[in-house]
Amino acid sequence: MRNLVIVIEYDGSGFCGWQSQKNGITIQDQVQKALKSVLNEDVILTASGRTDEGVHAKGQVANFYTENPIKCYKLPLGANLLLAPKIAIKECYETDLNFNARKSAVKKTYCYRIYMSATPSPLRDRTYFQTYRQLDIKKMKEAATYFIGIHDFVGFMATGSNSFTTIREIYSCEIINIGDSVEIYVCGNAFLYNMVRIIAGTLLAVGQNRIKPNEISAIIESKDRKRAGKTLLAKGLTLESVEY
Amino acid sequence: MRNLVIVIEYDGSGFCGWQSQKNGITIQDQVQKALKSVLNEDVILTASGRTDEGVHAKGQVANFYTENPIKCYKLPLGANLLLAPKIAIKECYETDLNFNARKSAVKKTYCYRIYMSATPSPLRDRTYFQTYRQLDIKKMKEAATYFIGIHDFVGFMATGSNSFTTIREIYSCEIINIGDSVEIYVCGNAFLYNMVRIIAGTLLAVGQNRIKPNEISAIIESKDRKRAGKTLLAKGLTLESVEY
Repeated sequence: MRNLVIVIEYDGSGFCGWQSQKNGITIQDQVQKALKSVLNEDVILTASGRTDEGVHAKGQVANFYTENPIKCYKLPLGANLLLAPKIAIKECYETDLNFNARKSAVKKTYCYRIYMSATPSPLRDRTYFQTYRQLDIKKMKEAATYFIGIHDFVGFMATGSNSFTTIREIYSCEIINIGDSVEIYVCGNAFLYNMVRIIAGTLLAVGQNRIKPNEISAIIESKDRKRAGKTLLAKGLTLESVEY
Repeated sequence: MRNLVIVIEYDGSGFCGWQSQKNGITIQDQVQKALKSVLNEDVILTASGRTDEGVHAKGQVANFYTENPIKCYKLPLGANLLLAPKIAIKECYETDLNFNARKSAVKKTYCYRIYMSATPSPLRDRTYFQTYRQLDIKKMKEAATYFIGIHDFVGFMATGSNSFTTIREIYSCEIINIGDSVEIYVCGNAFLYNMVRIIAGTLLAVGQNRIKPNEISAIIESKDRKRAGKTLLAKGLTLESVEY
């Protein structure tokens, strides 16, 4: 038995998210189907986490067990022909049998992308959220620092989560502004359901002067979903990388 | 009579280029249809130039004559609802009656985008050309400088052109490399048919050590299409801006 790890990039638009489901095409299903065709056996992928409908990934990580002796470098070649153009396996390597892409993850980085423009930007339509007015970037940068650290993020979680604990550690939260584009990078040990999209919505509200930067700590401590910002659209979110 | 100028951004994938034609959906047709719906009259757009099938634009410029007294800021609002998500009018302003988006253009900037990766990158699939190996960026930067200036670019032109002269001036040709991405910015007074895609193909050949940087001048002077590089795929090309 071998335990193979794959790193996957995908344009999530048009898919019903990562996780297999009865109705709708998911990324997990597509990758499993391609792997079956290459390996001639059924495999079940364990990913670092599910991504929602419309969310993208540059570096989703998943592992699976196989008896097939295929050389790792050959696996993406065959699978990518079947997965093109919206999904691609970027890397494949063999690892210890006890590695689990979800449980072994120690750090995840997401990026939420926003552009500030009165008119739509077709070339960024699939991967950015549009906001109509200029945001106060300086205030957003200040507000971002308040998310760093160990907090109970229960107020930054969509209903329908069933996590054992709602305490999470954020290692960094950084705003990069170039031209009319604003990228919000959030790195943490793990994330609650919709947590990054709610953090992005809260930082957007700061940029719009609807929340003050120094109110962020009180909002987190209130554990009140209503005090945080809106859950921004899925399409602006990309899972950038997972570290082990 | 008023002469209105519009600046248009589009994701060219799936369209048969800019120019109206009998068969196939073109960007010009889509924009004219949206303008007709907003202005309640037929208009004919004159663009800075046609873009080929699959080529994108961040700042295509076109003008048209109308009797409609519509306020300029209102025009994109109505039209963009009809054009979303692949086309958008970014700006609209009124100008002199003798302004012609093609003839009045003094400077155009194109960008050709390449990424270097053994595996495909789905998030860049629509707007980048994939090359499998690392390119020699230093040599590409040196080679780019030889394109600058006034030259007869007849060897960098696809057949089927019917230009009065094949002499063009290139103001700048710049290579920007970040991570595995290579952007080739070419700015000039005007371009021959497929000229930027052939310049990009020639610079790619330099990056692959198939052409030496100091051979570029001789290749241009030879006026021999066969000595220049391949015409790279349309999807990597974006018309960035037009100046007047």
